[in-house]
Amino acid sequence: MSAGTIYGVGLGPGDPELMSVRADRLVRNARHVAFFRKAGRPGQARSIVTGMLAPDAQEWPMEYPVTTEIPLTDPRYNAILSEFYETSVENLRRLSAEGEDVIVLCEGDPFFYGSFMHLYERLKGNTPVEVVPAITGMSAAWTATGRPVTWGDDVLTVLMGTLPEDDLRRRVADTDALVVMKIGRNFDKVRRAIADAGRLEEASLVEFAAMKNQRMTPLAEAGDRVTPYFSIIVIHGQGRRP
Amino acid sequence: MSAGTIYGVGLGPGDPELMSVRADRLVRNARHVAFFRKAGRPGQARSIVTGMLAPDAQEWPMEYPVTTEIPLTDPRYNAILSEFYETSVENLRRLSAEGEDVIVLCEGDPFFYGSFMHLYERLKGNTPVEVVPAITGMSAAWTATGRPVTWGDDVLTVLMGTLPEDDLRRRVADTDALVVMKIGRNFDKVRRAIADAGRLEEASLVEFAAMKNQRMTPLAEAGDRVTPYFSIIVIHGQGRRP
Repeated sequence: MSAGTIYGVGLGPGDPELMSVRADRLVRNARHVAFFRKAGRPGQARSIVTGMLAPDAQEWPMEYPVTTEIPLTDPRYNAILSEFYETSVENLRRLSAEGEDVIVLCEGDPFFYGSFMHLYERLKGNTPVEVVPAITGMSAAWTATGRPVTWGDDVLTVLMGTLPEDDLRRRVADTDALVVMKIGRNFDKVRRAIADAGRLEEASLVEFAAMKNQRMTPLAEAGDRVTPYFSIIVIHGQGRRP
Repeated sequence: MSAGTIYGVGLGPGDPELMSVRADRLVRNARHVAFFRKAGRPGQARSIVTGMLAPDAQEWPMEYPVTTEIPLTDPRYNAILSEFYETSVENLRRLSAEGEDVIVLCEGDPFFYGSFMHLYERLKGNTPVEVVPAITGMSAAWTATGRPVTWGDDVLTVLMGTLPEDDLRRRVADTDALVVMKIGRNFDKVRRAIADAGRLEEASLVEFAAMKNQRMTPLAEAGDRVTPYFSIIVIHGQGRRP
């Protein structure tokens, strides 16, 4: 019996119509479907494929351990997550050894700040594993703004809102086009950094890009409401255009 | 009679299986199909959809004027391209006014360094126009390397090989993850800039990502062969990973 393959299937930004033809087929035909989720939640990736799974598909939720009380810098944080990924990978390896293919549902593009990478790095070299790229959340965000993000020689910088404020400010000031992801609780810090870099008026905030409740707001008018973790800030480049 | 819609349809990196479900459907059902190409060439975007168009689909090639003898900085360059885009848009407007929908085939993601943007900016506000985002060529490139491109707080910088060498060197030295596009005749300059930034050993060269002749080479071993315009260089981030 030959080993099954673990597929990291990028689902794109959230609209099932924006899944690739290949991802769509893998999802509809899968016998084993694994996905990350927070305890007690349906899981964002699982929600995207609602109504698409075969009736007899077996589901393998992988529930993140609760780490909200532990700082990122605490060694326990890494230890707990590492053990979680190891346990998740053991199950995938077992299914593969039994000859079963498994798809792992991934929001966005698996190799671009994705959770699947933590499984992939533990599987490669010992278990057949394939990655299906996808439309990134940032592509959906800049499409939602209704304006092209990069022209000609524009430099694009992608920043995480988790970076220190000084780094954010310096890099926002030193790029043509900008994308900021992982905003959530970092919203005030990110907005201050963009304002201090003198670029507040250029920035757009996109919430729920490519989803039913998609919304685009000039960052300067966003007020103080807390934005969801998957909000994205975009500054458009102004490069050469005939 | 209501006006037809002009759809800028992102086709992704080149593998038809990586087109979105929406793009696939728009392509197969289109009555009018427009696309850019160089004179005397089939056109890269048109080639991606080989065998997918309806037998009675009407094709509207838009042939780039020859500008190879004119420097980018010469005002004539912009004037010639601007006239070309105006003429192309006039045809699309006419079809829309006749109530016809038209798809414009776009390699990659239309709003990310795409040619469609030049039509879009001239159509919006006067003609119904929609954009379908797609998998970028850079997603296909980093997937082809078999390694995740960004982790944790990694900064990703996207640079065009057309930038001055000093800019390239400075920015390559000041990022975690890197993508360089539009390499072609800029290959030697880009490689020098990466080497001078001390990062040659980290860089991978991906040619024809997601196409049949896809090839990945460490940049340090790429030798002196000329690489095609759509080659992409990737440096992987080394960010936090449990």
